[in-house]
Amino acid sequence: MRDGPAIGVDIGGTKVSGALVQADGTISHRIRRDTPERTTTPAVVESTIVGVVEELLEAGEQDAAGAEPSGNRLDAAAAGITGSAVAAVGIGAAGWVSSDRATVVFAPHLSWRNEPLRERLSGRLSLPVFVDNDANSAGWAEWRFGAGRGERHLVMITLGTGIGGALMIDGTIQRGRYGLAGEFGHMQVVPGGHRCACGNRGCWEQYASGRALIREARAIMDTRSPVARELTALAAVEPDGLSGPMITQAARDGDRTAVELLGEIGEWLGVGLANIAAAFDPGGFVIGGGVSAAGELLLAPARESFRRRLPGRGDREEAFIVAAQLGNDAGLIGAADLARSELD
Amino acid sequence: MRDGPAIGVDIGGTKVSGALVQADGTISHRIRRDTPERTTTPAVVESTIVGVVEELLEAGEQDAAGAEPSGNRLDAAAAGITGSAVAAVGIGAAGWVSSDRATVVFAPHLSWRNEPLRERLSGRLSLPVFVDNDANSAGWAEWRFGAGRGERHLVMITLGTGIGGALMIDGTIQRGRYGLAGEFGHMQVVPGGHRCACGNRGCWEQYASGRALIREARAIMDTRSPVARELTALAAVEPDGLSGPMITQAARDGDRTAVELLGEIGEWLGVGLANIAAAFDPGGFVIGGGVSAAGELLLAPARESFRRRLPGRGDREEAFIVAAQLGNDAGLIGAADLARSELD
Repeated sequence: MRDGPAIGVDIGGTKVSGALVQADGTISHRIRRDTPERTTTPAVVESTIVGVVEELLEAGEQDAAGAEPSGNRLDAAAAGITGSAVAAVGIGAAGWVSSDRATVVFAPHLSWRNEPLRERLSGRLSLPVFVDNDANSAGWAEWRFGAGRGERHLVMITLGTGIGGALMIDGTIQRGRYGLAGEFGHMQVVPGGHRCACGNRGCWEQYASGRALIREARAIMDTRSPVARELTALAAVEPDGLSGPMITQAARDGDRTAVELLGEIGEWLGVGLANIAAAFDPGGFVIGGGVSAAGELLLAPARESFRRRLPGRGDREEAFIVAAQLGNDAGLIGAADLARSELD
Repeated sequence: MRDGPAIGVDIGGTKVSGALVQADGTISHRIRRDTPERTTTPAVVESTIVGVVEELLEAGEQDAAGAEPSGNRLDAAAAGITGSAVAAVGIGAAGWVSSDRATVVFAPHLSWRNEPLRERLSGRLSLPVFVDNDANSAGWAEWRFGAGRGERHLVMITLGTGIGGALMIDGTIQRGRYGLAGEFGHMQVVPGGHRCACGNRGCWEQYASGRALIREARAIMDTRSPVARELTALAAVEPDGLSGPMITQAARDGDRTAVELLGEIGEWLGVGLANIAAAFDPGGFVIGGGVSAAGELLLAPARESFRRRLPGRGDREEAFIVAAQLGNDAGLIGAADLARSELD
């Protein structure tokens, strides 16, 4: 793989983040631009991406020329910048990307349909461009530089509002026949269960996600049961009501109901991981996304649930289940490094 | 891939079948030997396999020498035997096989645990030997010569008493980190559901298999409902009671209850296929095994259930769902051809 830096871009619903990522996975410059929500046309988002990339290219050139970088001199020095030219641009998008990594098939937050993003950007940037799903980018980063290092059969699960997934087999991210592999969150785990944003019922992400955590917390508060006293008090002082991080903090502070709620999410997490293990037999799972900040409050119940359901348990090696290490940077780092890896 | 014949061996609970398989997938000789059940030691099964292989080698040599084959002269002629020497031996076993294709980790019908089958057989046969799961063998055969031709992202599901599975990505059978990939039948689809032979509850194979078909038929007969009249009459004249093929025949003969029972199995089949599609996004599914003899009585409801549950339906290409074409020969043909493919 080439040893120069690459640029990673993360397209969210309301922002475009970009970073100049060195070959060792460290970030030497970063930029963030807000974009108007939903109504934004693809052309506006494309121009925002181009602006972010051009600014990062300039920063990279300054590094290469030995000039003072625009802002992060200490970061740049710490990252051991090589001065090489930027090799490629990787775009991570929350959505479905075609298997040739060129087209955003469907991006719920951007109202995109079959958007030929690579072609559009390649016409405006003189660099190779690759597009990928944000979970694939994060999974790649955790494999190269994070919690999944050393395991070539790896599944990444990102627990945010919903569930994102990446499937790596023998060191290669799998995209499936049409690019839509890894949508583990929409595997049905409860017949006739909760309605999902995808239109189906009983999807895994309705039971093991931030949305599920909030829904169950609200349900228990609605009962006015004494066990919800602490959570109700917390929600009362917050204008937006209860949030996932608040529940995690309450659990850390010893509220048993919050511990139980995270335990339930963890148990459902283990159910889905055991299903994925039955299908793929990976060597390990890396759990990222906002909900994974709960750490062992989530992962310990998940491991127990997983072990109780794994087919052939006792007669097989069991996959490890660990927390992600790269946090919110995983998407940017992975998008950049995946793009660089495509050059070989 | 080499163009000589290979030998395929299929190890079941009570028999060892073998076949000389030409490079075009046709069978030119076949042998079947009974083995005592369960109590049989690995050594006895090994000797049976060696005997089967030696007899097939002799048949192959006679072909090569232009001599009259031992029994199937017409078959051999029809198969266009090339006269090449046998290149490899492939063993398909109903059980879990290590990812290096050497060791049978666990075979429920043979009471084997970590049996180093390849090493044992290689010591007695002067040919390369490869061991694989029977569903993987069948999936490979259907891809090379059967219903899955042309689709490199393929999932094979064998519906027998339970569910077997094979996962092919870009033309390669996936075995997972430890060799246990493709155990789709043990993905949980009903929380707290029917107890499975694996020890868990609610596994897919408890809802979409021959066992499920019989269980549901018996349940409806137990109600003494008028709708079970036909099935009850059929079961009464058979000493062993109702069987899967009898239900399929009753459905073909127009019994609505039998049609509904197969429809329920098909609906659950579609649930699991949609889950697999969410995870892998294959280009197609091939459905084999005894239950698949019901054809469209099973597959039409499966397709409808699949389409109703596929995440992103309407915005994506949909995998095809077709019946297997090679029947019971798939395991033998695939074991032989997979072994030959390993030589490259």
